[in-house]
Amino acid sequence: MQALKERILRDGKCFEGGILKVDNFINHQMDPILMKSMAVEFVRRFSGSDINKVLTIEASGIAPAIMVGYLLELPVVFAKKKKPSTMENMLSTQVFSFTKNNTYDVCVCRDYLHPGDKVLFIDDFLANGNAAKGIIDLVRQSGAELSGMGFLIEKAFQHGGDELRAMGIRVESLAIIDGLEDCRIKIRD
Amino acid sequence: MQALKERILRDGKCFEGGILKVDNFINHQMDPILMKSMAVEFVRRFSGSDINKVLTIEASGIAPAIMVGYLLELPVVFAKKKKPSTMENMLSTQVFSFTKNNTYDVCVCRDYLHPGDKVLFIDDFLANGNAAKGIIDLVRQSGAELSGMGFLIEKAFQHGGDELRAMGIRVESLAIIDGLEDCRIKIRD
Repeated sequence: MQALKERILRDGKCFEGGILKVDNFINHQMDPILMKSMAVEFVRRFSGSDINKVLTIEASGIAPAIMVGYLLELPVVFAKKKKPSTMENMLSTQVFSFTKNNTYDVCVCRDYLHPGDKVLFIDDFLANGNAAKGIIDLVRQSGAELSGMGFLIEKAFQHGGDELRAMGIRVESLAIIDGLEDCRIKIRD
Repeated sequence: MQALKERILRDGKCFEGGILKVDNFINHQMDPILMKSMAVEFVRRFSGSDINKVLTIEASGIAPAIMVGYLLELPVVFAKKKKPSTMENMLSTQVFSFTKNNTYDVCVCRDYLHPGDKVLFIDDFLANGNAAKGIIDLVRQSGAELSGMGFLIEKAFQHGGDELRAMGIRVESLAIIDGLEDCRIKIRD
């Protein structure tokens, strides 16, 4: 998606260790007009898919997911990164974060993800795919079906996308980063 | 706001200790159509205010805030609940949560909140007002100006709204809960 690629090249910041920061327009400060445009692009790409629910993970996935849900007129569920004390009937899985070098729980209430649901998962980043695999596990536990996964930015050199596609999952990424060597952002055409 | 009040009465759940759960349409599963309608109502209520930025706190504030930002065509910043390891130049404050009986950090990067900004804060709940007071502190530290605070639901019996209004802050709440005694939801007309 051209507008996103241009924005990454303009405002993205590259750090040692393959880190791309997009705090200026996605992760901390958000550009709602761009968010809506990205949501339109997801709707276009998943137009042939059967979807009745949008799923994401807090916190950075919520903005793109709510925009997709708004356009599709579908409920949006955000998985939580720790088990809320007041919530029962939870499905939960563990995700290892390479960036933070820790393991965290991802939870979703059974009331909002169940057999018969056809789920489009939306998130900001796809890197090694660990969070995505956690979501796949939650969807499997719930008895729902995964219709596809959409990411704003895929870091292809961390190969999570390869693994998900090899599992037969429909993955759509709006910008694919092929490398961040020497702090230069290499975006796929 | 009538649609929200009706939805709270229909889908809200009341628990011991003044807890109102709206997980079905705001806090975990979200209704994007209702989110957009609530954002329209905020735009209407703050139409006379000078605003150049929308501010919220992760995670439940993000959906209503991004919708308000989209309608107003303004950037949206979400304050983070813990200090990210990769982020420098942070403003931070501490918030005590009565619900969780703990203290957490709320942070925002100076790059995204600075003198000259006129900020509309949007969040899902206003109860005792501790999170809101943390935001007021961050805005003060940054040198920005607070144009107003908008909440989806105010629990008036926890008096945070009274305190904020006594400080001279323009506070707008789309539904005001006057009581949750005996697990009955008492909404103000």
